[in-house]
Amino acid sequence: MMTRKGKLYGVGVGPGEPELLTLKAARILQEVAVVFFPRGDKGEQSLALQIVRPLLHPDQELREVTFPMTTSRRALEGAWREVAQTVTAVLDAGRDAAFITMGDSTLYSTFFYLKRALREARPDLEVETVPGIPSFSAAAALLSRPLACGREGLAVVPATRGRAFLRQVLATFENVVILKAGPVLEEMRNLLAEAGRLEEAAYVCRCGMPGQLLEENLAAAGELPGDYFSLILVGNFSRSKF
Amino acid sequence: MMTRKGKLYGVGVGPGEPELLTLKAARILQEVAVVFFPRGDKGEQSLALQIVRPLLHPDQELREVTFPMTTSRRALEGAWREVAQTVTAVLDAGRDAAFITMGDSTLYSTFFYLKRALREARPDLEVETVPGIPSFSAAAALLSRPLACGREGLAVVPATRGRAFLRQVLATFENVVILKAGPVLEEMRNLLAEAGRLEEAAYVCRCGMPGQLLEENLAAAGELPGDYFSLILVGNFSRSKF
Repeated sequence: MMTRKGKLYGVGVGPGEPELLTLKAARILQEVAVVFFPRGDKGEQSLALQIVRPLLHPDQELREVTFPMTTSRRALEGAWREVAQTVTAVLDAGRDAAFITMGDSTLYSTFFYLKRALREARPDLEVETVPGIPSFSAAAALLSRPLACGREGLAVVPATRGRAFLRQVLATFENVVILKAGPVLEEMRNLLAEAGRLEEAAYVCRCGMPGQLLEENLAAAGELPGDYFSLILVGNFSRSKF
Repeated sequence: MMTRKGKLYGVGVGPGEPELLTLKAARILQEVAVVFFPRGDKGEQSLALQIVRPLLHPDQELREVTFPMTTSRRALEGAWREVAQTVTAVLDAGRDAAFITMGDSTLYSTFFYLKRALREARPDLEVETVPGIPSFSAAAALLSRPLACGREGLAVVPATRGRAFLRQVLATFENVVILKAGPVLEEMRNLLAEAGRLEEAAYVCRCGMPGQLLEENLAAAGELPGDYFSLILVGNFSRSKF
């Protein structure tokens, strides 16, 4: 007898504000039997789970996925293969599942590590990606400034990418988003000052979460929290009056 | 007597699929008294209005905003000042209003032209920006590929930006989104081939709309529709197995 296999959804839950989920994400999260949520092995709470929890009902199963905070490709791939096995067992039992990630599922999310491991082991299983509001869109909206206009370009770069690349990007793009800027905020300030663009920079920390902080003028700001959930927006923020 | 002034919301309605509206956008669109929707003077239907129409109720007022399809700054600014006057009259009467735009309201949207004109004339009026799913996030989700991973960068550039800039971006960024690529698709194909990146390019046209087309492999594709609502995604789409 052929039994129906379950389907896996990779769901972006947006940057923090629960109302910034899409209608589609909300519907899927209420329909699936199992919700997988990621947690690093440093023990912090799952923010993604906190965002969606009010939507869920008691008969849904919540399952934590722990992955090592390491840059070792071998350790990571092994961990994701294990998660893929767990997900496979759920789908083979005919149950649909969602894997939730912060922000947009297509941008810097762990979902695609799972998807790759799943695809390698079981290419027959159905997987759907559900986009979410990226943190930088929500941050720009909070500041009520455009990310980009007209013929302008927009560059999105993690602060961890390295100084040489960031320098080049700051020299060529009207608008630049530097992700995860908090932990290296002083280095980023120096880099922006060097590029002559500190006056155009805004800082948004914990966008849409408890402890949210907006600093429209990074040049004039004093001490700032160096949170991981933080970004610097450079560009339209100061050049034009919006 | 002080009367309450209305508030203006700039609402991104996502790339086309009505379920990709956020819960917040849906709520606001059901609460406001007036919905302004933009239309170019070429007479095409308002796609943004089509997306949200099922959410609206009969006592809400729908008002079309026409703006000239011109690059003349003077003509555009004059047109937006007129729209700002119309919006002001609504807000002064104590009615809330939404201005809807396709995709994300912070990315290449006409909303900020209105916001600037309104701010100049009436800085006392309250304006809130509500983000939406960007077309490129939805396109990547449809292809079930990441836009960017790990320490990679992402560049978003309109095809109209010019060849020199596009060449430089293709030479430096792992991942590149070229917006509005359809009308100049052959030129873009040549540029990508020249940069040695045609094999990494996918094409998405009318994402989430009637007539949607996905072409995972632009190099192998034949004749393609040159729609305005179209983009090329270059990068992760071919390099890794997702």
